[in-house]
Amino acid sequence: MTWVNGHATTSVDVTDRGLQYGDGLFETVTCVDGEPRWLAAHLARLRLGCERLRIPFRDYDLLVDEIGHAAGAQSRAIVKIIVTRGNSAARGYAFAGDETPTRIVSRHEWPSEPADARTRGIAVVTARRTMPADPTLAGIKHLNRLDNVLAAREATERGVDEILRFDEGGRLICGSMTNVFLVRGESLLTPALDRAGVCGVMRDRVLRLAEEGGRIAQVKDVDGPDLRAAEGVFLTNVRVGIWPVQRIDDRELQVPALVRQLQEQLDRHA
Amino acid sequence: MTWVNGHATTSVDVTDRGLQYGDGLFETVTCVDGEPRWLAAHLARLRLGCERLRIPFRDYDLLVDEIGHAAGAQSRAIVKIIVTRGNSAARGYAFAGDETPTRIVSRHEWPSEPADARTRGIAVVTARRTMPADPTLAGIKHLNRLDNVLAAREATERGVDEILRFDEGGRLICGSMTNVFLVRGESLLTPALDRAGVCGVMRDRVLRLAEEGGRIAQVKDVDGPDLRAAEGVFLTNVRVGIWPVQRIDDRELQVPALVRQLQEQLDRHA
Repeated sequence: MTWVNGHATTSVDVTDRGLQYGDGLFETVTCVDGEPRWLAAHLARLRLGCERLRIPFRDYDLLVDEIGHAAGAQSRAIVKIIVTRGNSAARGYAFAGDETPTRIVSRHEWPSEPADARTRGIAVVTARRTMPADPTLAGIKHLNRLDNVLAAREATERGVDEILRFDEGGRLICGSMTNVFLVRGESLLTPALDRAGVCGVMRDRVLRLAEEGGRIAQVKDVDGPDLRAAEGVFLTNVRVGIWPVQRIDDRELQVPALVRQLQEQLDRHA
Repeated sequence: MTWVNGHATTSVDVTDRGLQYGDGLFETVTCVDGEPRWLAAHLARLRLGCERLRIPFRDYDLLVDEIGHAAGAQSRAIVKIIVTRGNSAARGYAFAGDETPTRIVSRHEWPSEPADARTRGIAVVTARRTMPADPTLAGIKHLNRLDNVLAAREATERGVDEILRFDEGGRLICGSMTNVFLVRGESLLTPALDRAGVCGVMRDRVLRLAEEGGRIAQVKDVDGPDLRAAEGVFLTNVRVGIWPVQRIDDRELQVPALVRQLQEQLDRHA
């Protein structure tokens, strides 16, 4: 089920800059019992992305209606939104600034997840490729995702469900599709994402839950020694919620009680 | 005029990974009197890109036929090729490796160029944004082009026709749509592109022309002082050929005789 600019269709114009240059943004919204979750946070990130890329998208009201419609009646569904810059009059990288954006809304089945991922946790490896840094594109969920595609492939080939990414400076950034948190006693630590990575909606949610629980939650640069010193590690996105990490490369990890508490907090508030 | 997998159509499947993630490659082929120029070099780069991204594209013979057909009878035309990974069975960054690639061939008018660009040269500025580094994606012409889009926009806003890009380490890399050469006496110098940038077909052509002319042509790291020490600077791509640079920021530049000689050599061999 896909709608392009409000019309039910499975196709998009081949000249769309989303295809030609990855000139656009996306959001992956989880819907439960027909209700999109954390929609305001998704729309806020989309809005920030449009500002950064200077895409003059205005149709947020239409988009919200379409997401609600797409959510359907299933107990669980994924609604993906893409907003591109649309077409430019001329071929080439340059844009005029007055293009008419394209909006795409599609419904997808909720995928299955690895057995025991929420309870026992998942095994991860540290990636061989480093992550490129670009402050302009950091944080937002743009369509230039080859780096994530290649990282996800490395995870598949190495037989794990997620992979930890570092930048050239040795800073831990994120997984291929998740944000990462370190546990130290009753405190949480998650990488600053001002140079690479996507500021996940669930990452924000977990930071807020931690603060509501009276815990210290720090956003700052995190390096390899920080990761090795962590008592526990977990991964987040809106679909998986909180996945504990049970192994990083050859190192086995415990799942601290704090992670269980956050999972319960999240279940109560979701 | 556009053909997708051999069919005349203006649309592509919305689930195509080219749109979803920029998971693909492109080439911009210049055609003169119905003949694609430097086609072997374009196809070699496409092949290298498919290897790097692990896109199992095989239909080079079909593609060559379609490019010839698209070239048409015009004295000059641009034929753009896009090859994407196609669709994956499941949503998400990971790919299985056995996807069926999508090939898109489209014909475009040859755009007008700035007045006197080939003779007097063009004015450029040095970019404010630095260029992200990613050795896996460097050199190939992949579809993740937001960095080029934003650079081209900066050029437009600053009233110039091209913009010089540096990486975080202060190395000169390229323009938004061109490669860059420095002239020093009878020698040429062009940046190594093993960390960022696209290895242009015209860049290779100029390196070869220089060598055929018995000149020294070096490919190596180039920095700001190298650029300031250059007697002349020029930009290349298959469409513009060789554009001399007449001004970088506030500094006026001469056009060395060597640049004229290379332009003439290129006109004779094109």
